[in-house]
Amino acid sequence: MVVSLRLPSLSSLFLPSVSLRSPAVLRRHHHRILRTPVFAVSFSAQTTVSETDDRVDTQKSNRVQDQAVTPRSKDFNAWYLDVIEQAELADYGPVRGTMVIRPYGYAIWEAIQDYLNVKFKETGHSNMYFPQFIPYSFIEKEASHVEGFSPELAVVTIGGGKELEEKLVVRPTSETIVNHMFTQWIHSYRDLPLMVNQWANVTRWEMRTKPFVRTLEFLWQEGHTAHATPEEAEKEAIQMIDVYTKFAYEQTAIPVIAGRKSKVETFAGAVKTYTIEAMMGDRKALQAGTSHNLGQNFSRAFGTQFTDESGLRQHVWQTSWAVSTRFVGGIIMTHGDDTGLMLPPKIAPIQVVIIPIWKKDDDRAVVLNAASSVKEALHAAGIKVKLDDSDQRTPGWKFNFWEMKGVPLRIEIGPRDVSSQSVVVSRRDVPGKQGKVFGISMEPSVLEAYIKDKLDEIQSSLLEKAESFRDSNIVDVSSYDELKVAISQGKWARGPWSAGDKEELRVKEETGATIRCFPFEQPLGIKSCFMTGNPAEEVAIFAKSY
Amino acid sequence: MVVSLRLPSLSSLFLPSVSLRSPAVLRRHHHRILRTPVFAVSFSAQTTVSETDDRVDTQKSNRVQDQAVTPRSKDFNAWYLDVIEQAELADYGPVRGTMVIRPYGYAIWEAIQDYLNVKFKETGHSNMYFPQFIPYSFIEKEASHVEGFSPELAVVTIGGGKELEEKLVVRPTSETIVNHMFTQWIHSYRDLPLMVNQWANVTRWEMRTKPFVRTLEFLWQEGHTAHATPEEAEKEAIQMIDVYTKFAYEQTAIPVIAGRKSKVETFAGAVKTYTIEAMMGDRKALQAGTSHNLGQNFSRAFGTQFTDESGLRQHVWQTSWAVSTRFVGGIIMTHGDDTGLMLPPKIAPIQVVIIPIWKKDDDRAVVLNAASSVKEALHAAGIKVKLDDSDQRTPGWKFNFWEMKGVPLRIEIGPRDVSSQSVVVSRRDVPGKQGKVFGISMEPSVLEAYIKDKLDEIQSSLLEKAESFRDSNIVDVSSYDELKVAISQGKWARGPWSAGDKEELRVKEETGATIRCFPFEQPLGIKSCFMTGNPAEEVAIFAKSY
Repeated sequence: MVVSLRLPSLSSLFLPSVSLRSPAVLRRHHHRILRTPVFAVSFSAQTTVSETDDRVDTQKSNRVQDQAVTPRSKDFNAWYLDVIEQAELADYGPVRGTMVIRPYGYAIWEAIQDYLNVKFKETGHSNMYFPQFIPYSFIEKEASHVEGFSPELAVVTIGGGKELEEKLVVRPTSETIVNHMFTQWIHSYRDLPLMVNQWANVTRWEMRTKPFVRTLEFLWQEGHTAHATPEEAEKEAIQMIDVYTKFAYEQTAIPVIAGRKSKVETFAGAVKTYTIEAMMGDRKALQAGTSHNLGQNFSRAFGTQFTDESGLRQHVWQTSWAVSTRFVGGIIMTHGDDTGLMLPPKIAPIQVVIIPIWKKDDDRAVVLNAASSVKEALHAAGIKVKLDDSDQRTPGWKFNFWEMKGVPLRIEIGPRDVSSQSVVVSRRDVPGKQGKVFGISMEPSVLEAYIKDKLDEIQSSLLEKAESFRDSNIVDVSSYDELKVAISQGKWARGPWSAGDKEELRVKEETGATIRCFPFEQPLGIKSCFMTGNPAEEVAIFAKSY
Repeated sequence: MVVSLRLPSLSSLFLPSVSLRSPAVLRRHHHRILRTPVFAVSFSAQTTVSETDDRVDTQKSNRVQDQAVTPRSKDFNAWYLDVIEQAELADYGPVRGTMVIRPYGYAIWEAIQDYLNVKFKETGHSNMYFPQFIPYSFIEKEASHVEGFSPELAVVTIGGGKELEEKLVVRPTSETIVNHMFTQWIHSYRDLPLMVNQWANVTRWEMRTKPFVRTLEFLWQEGHTAHATPEEAEKEAIQMIDVYTKFAYEQTAIPVIAGRKSKVETFAGAVKTYTIEAMMGDRKALQAGTSHNLGQNFSRAFGTQFTDESGLRQHVWQTSWAVSTRFVGGIIMTHGDDTGLMLPPKIAPIQVVIIPIWKKDDDRAVVLNAASSVKEALHAAGIKVKLDDSDQRTPGWKFNFWEMKGVPLRIEIGPRDVSSQSVVVSRRDVPGKQGKVFGISMEPSVLEAYIKDKLDEIQSSLLEKAESFRDSNIVDVSSYDELKVAISQGKWARGPWSAGDKEELRVKEETGATIRCFPFEQPLGIKSCFMTGNPAEEVAIFAKSY
């Protein structure tokens, strides 16, 4: 049991604690920043961690000295790594470029899984599992596939103490082994469509890694389908990018732009790649999900054939589509602010945190009792709620901590609130007084309705904010010079494009921007390519990207 | 769309179809067996697959010619492989010893996951994810761990086209990397207990493999916890074997025997291993889940320490526990019969299959309409129901197919049933007339209640059957000779044991049996070791095992 001492002054409420649970330092050069507290109300001190305990803890030399993150406005990358570390989302693994996904980060991934899993099943897909070891020869069968993936392979050469006769690739993606199996399951048109999905780990030997965004091993789902006609495959590829788009908007409040990749950016082995592109807080683009129309590229390479209704043998038409743990990085970088993480309620592992506040020991039981009742009522209403009743931290520390962890709503309950049978509710996304409402009734039905309403409001508000941020950072360009200006300002450039791969690569070389997509939503009217002046059917979006 | 022809005679109902969806042959020497149909009622023919279609399909030379499995009573192993193939549970992967888990098999795994995931969270564990690549040096840190696992390792030596400086092990289990990370997260007693779980794939380079039971790569969950005291760790290890035991009994109807492993059979690196042992249909034992008290073995090897309440540095006390896709093999081998798979309702991907039956085209719409209504009603009641309304197969073919797939209940609906607003319900676990009940009302509330009741009855009945099978095949022995007789009869032997490792290995060598466990449930009274005559505190169970 913790032996607690009283702190002598109120000021301690605003001093970050000297010890943190997670000392693992993602970013090695750590800035020591004391946050300016944003609370607009005064509240009373409570029992806190003893000085003895702190002394014990600080004996470890590598402890993080405060809980503040580098402000996002100051250094986006440092902020990102701070948030991942201090919000306990992930840690580096012992092997370069690998990542340990910690419970709070994994819970976000589980929320992604829960939603998509239902949608995949509703659209007729079954989950299954393919082995992760792929004979090296499989990878070599599809020409552009091997070209795209061979530099990134992890290869098993020893098994059970012996050198293997055929080296095994640790799957970077599964089209090859999927086709190998499909040839055994598909015979006639009656076996089609074949529509499966797997949740799995994949390995790509990336040189420059970043937690969630690009890691040596990551988690994803990969859907694989086979169809009797090219039309069906195309319809499926579009259907799945639509599922992703809806997911991004409605669950994660990320206003992605859906569209088609340029030939240069198309998946190694695909005929067409559809993508959802998200604008991060630093205005770089993140490819957040892709859906590929594979045509007959893999079915020809692997001989995946079926007998059609007239008795002819045909190669199947295929798709594959994936979303990965990278999406968690997208959520962090879309909504976070100087204070830390900001989670959309629908994807938040904790939607509401309750902080009990008391000064006198006499008040403790009364406050905790009320806090527990509120917690039970909200939990019963299906709200993800946490009561932080720890004696080891001050309310001030807890405010900072849960704000940094991005919990959408905070409920404060002190002795006066108990007397008036009400609570104080603060929004994470509206700092200070403005986001704070006093005197919300504790009566369960009133409070539940209020909280649910607020969570919906926050969900919409985050999406609106992200949309207006996105729209104010996309520039319509009609010349290469205009594009250069836009990109140099860190913005996205949208303009008519019908030039070739060579010009596209030139833009990349000269500006660092790539074609993110030809968006599905196209402006009307006659267009001419901003690079060549030739007629152009579509506008493309150019941006720097992760 | 399928162009269908009528078959000329009723006899075709009972002829297995000449083509099967899944031609992948798990067991290469395939016995051609025509099942004797067990249906006790006559029913009418329906439109079926055209001869043309069949001719097309049979052009493939490797097609399975019938849907019957080798009777279990004839050849248990052949039966097992037939069931896995024909019930479309799994297929061999391209790399020796790997397995592709097909949707129907994966759905059983998902049912296992859904139940356990809730229980793990209820008992205070969080899901997370550790990387699968482990530096080779980690494996070498715990002496018995490296001895146990080094012969089974898959090793990555090439990454991104380059020879790696340090070889990477593809995780065979994660205690080493878990401890590496725990050292970064655990500082004081306030960080304990730390209780996490991951759902992941693992790789063990097994020489003799068997689908689900022992594969090169398999799926599992692995729980890892760290505690401040040995008592807490012991309590946790026991708690988790209890969770597994309850799961086995209540969800999978497998009456496992829970107990402690002998020293010889203890997990490489554990102080104590608890196990649940299941008796398969061939009376061999299957270790279906384990929970390890790791003591301080790994924390000492990795330096996983915490500062206790008095300020002293201590090594943490740990547990780990796992259940894998092997459990699916256990379900197959516990309940299956000559006809094929038999799934306990609580774990069955499909609990009820509806087979519509009609003769005249006029009846088709009426019957299908009624079948759809029944399906919707049951689905709305939370029952996992499938309507097999395919025109390509006869009702007889469908009866056989879904029995072989182990669906607990079949509902038959023909024109006369529609007239009387009733259905026929057949139990998978009670063959023939006995398991068939006519005239169950279609009225949703009546039918739902009836079906739910029957599913419960089947669930209990399967457990009872398995229990009485198990109990009639365990022999209490009081001498080594009695053990030898019991084992040679294929039974389990239970007897007092206090002899050493040497004697235990001698039993294994001479009889093929190992100590499966010292069961938690022990007989009262004074015992003497059947091998040495010395006093014995416990009985042990010996058996041949998978």
